[in-house]
Amino acid sequence: MNLIDGKKISLKIQENIAEEVKKITSSGKKPPHLAAVLVGNDGGSETYVAAKIKACGRVGFNSTLIRHPEYVTEEKLLQTIADLNNNSDIDGFIVQLPLPRHINEHKIIEAVLPSKDVDGFHPINVGRMVLNLPCYVSATPYGIVQLLEHYKIETSGKHCVVVGRSHIVGSPMSILMAKNTTLGNCTVTLCHSKTTNLSDYTRSADILICALGSPEFIKADMIKQGAVVVDVGTTRVESTESKNGFKLKGDVMFNEVSQKCSFITPVPGGVGPMTIASLLKNTLLAAKKEIYP
Amino acid sequence: MNLIDGKKISLKIQENIAEEVKKITSSGKKPPHLAAVLVGNDGGSETYVAAKIKACGRVGFNSTLIRHPEYVTEEKLLQTIADLNNNSDIDGFIVQLPLPRHINEHKIIEAVLPSKDVDGFHPINVGRMVLNLPCYVSATPYGIVQLLEHYKIETSGKHCVVVGRSHIVGSPMSILMAKNTTLGNCTVTLCHSKTTNLSDYTRSADILICALGSPEFIKADMIKQGAVVVDVGTTRVESTESKNGFKLKGDVMFNEVSQKCSFITPVPGGVGPMTIASLLKNTLLAAKKEIYP
Repeated sequence: MNLIDGKKISLKIQENIAEEVKKITSSGKKPPHLAAVLVGNDGGSETYVAAKIKACGRVGFNSTLIRHPEYVTEEKLLQTIADLNNNSDIDGFIVQLPLPRHINEHKIIEAVLPSKDVDGFHPINVGRMVLNLPCYVSATPYGIVQLLEHYKIETSGKHCVVVGRSHIVGSPMSILMAKNTTLGNCTVTLCHSKTTNLSDYTRSADILICALGSPEFIKADMIKQGAVVVDVGTTRVESTESKNGFKLKGDVMFNEVSQKCSFITPVPGGVGPMTIASLLKNTLLAAKKEIYP
Repeated sequence: MNLIDGKKISLKIQENIAEEVKKITSSGKKPPHLAAVLVGNDGGSETYVAAKIKACGRVGFNSTLIRHPEYVTEEKLLQTIADLNNNSDIDGFIVQLPLPRHINEHKIIEAVLPSKDVDGFHPINVGRMVLNLPCYVSATPYGIVQLLEHYKIETSGKHCVVVGRSHIVGSPMSILMAKNTTLGNCTVTLCHSKTTNLSDYTRSADILICALGSPEFIKADMIKQGAVVVDVGTTRVESTESKNGFKLKGDVMFNEVSQKCSFITPVPGGVGPMTIASLLKNTLLAAKKEIYP
């Protein structure tokens, strides 16, 4: 079994980005600039945004954090987005989700200029992904694709089974793996909560991508000998073993599955660290105007 | 075996649309108005556009046909699109594909106002479909969904296998069938030219959607007893049996497959006639501003 080391690859990608930023600035141009909009004080969102801002510093990007209180109006938030759209110094920006209930999330996402939508959440970027046109691919799917690429995992003609159909992971992942591209060309099966006889599908997978958010749901008897297993789940479960009282658990029963598969992503340290590298990569693409010239 | 009669259902849908148009006009409002842009004189395109314009007349829509010669410039075509976007009398319009090679098809498609894109080809409509947001679904997938709906075919938890990953049929079909909606909730496998052991997948399908464009490729030994078979293929093959020297052939070997399945769409008379009904339905939705209020 080979461990897919997301942490190491994420850092390597960030090193490459940092080098490219040095080239950009030494040629007299401004560094890429990412802005993040944070509404309220949700603990998870605070942590994620802080990590993104910190990563910007690490690779030499400029960053701006714009905070709004929990009770901000939709109108006010739309105004912030319009300002960021019009600000030529900002290359890309994200609005950290989830948003408070009184704000229409889809309306906010569709207000972001597609060319600055480095989260890849705007329908136009999702549609372009389906149509094989240049687009920003959202962080987690893009991160997984980069992992498979880095470990030279053969995908063409393989059976890829995706468990979970979320808009953020499962659904785009199923689309990407089936595309007629070098990393793609899988026969793809998308399974979800309504799937009957799930094991029949997972057991036939050459590549199994688990994104259900159900800790240790996938057991060794559900996978094929030699499969590639990508575990996207990250559920916090209480634990007396760790100082802060909880542990991150993936969707896969790591100890037993890792005995049977050829490659596996651990949790933590697998897919998770890749999301920041993906966001930075998208921001670099935005600064270079590679997707929307 | 039950024959899925696309011709009958298409006419029924058109009757319903005609009734709704009567209500609209009798309330003093203008009827829905569809415009079609036709470039050059391709025989197939001429036939399709003529059929669409004729169908408009049948249901009481206004229609406009705008023709450009084969050598029209991209700039000129973009100007036509801008005029249609700005013309408040036009509810929706289509640009008949394919376009001549000197014109960038994607650029043309993205120039159509999403709210008037009744073909559902604009990336924003494709992305909204993926994200389960209101959108125009393109004619063939929408037609198939309506057929399954009309025949009350149970989809939830069923294994739907889609063969072919074209942007117009296979890919959107695989997305629609997996969605968390009444007509959806299938476990979906998307197969294509790079799939190995295709029969293993097709034989496990409760619902098999064939969109490969390879005449009579799917044989009886490739399907499960009692499966629902949707045949999207329409290939012209030479034939001495018909007056015009050719016959339309589906992807399915009808004579033998029909003995084994529970439902099947014939070619012609199955999926084909539904595409016009879908286009008219989308145009009605556009006139009522139901998708983009």
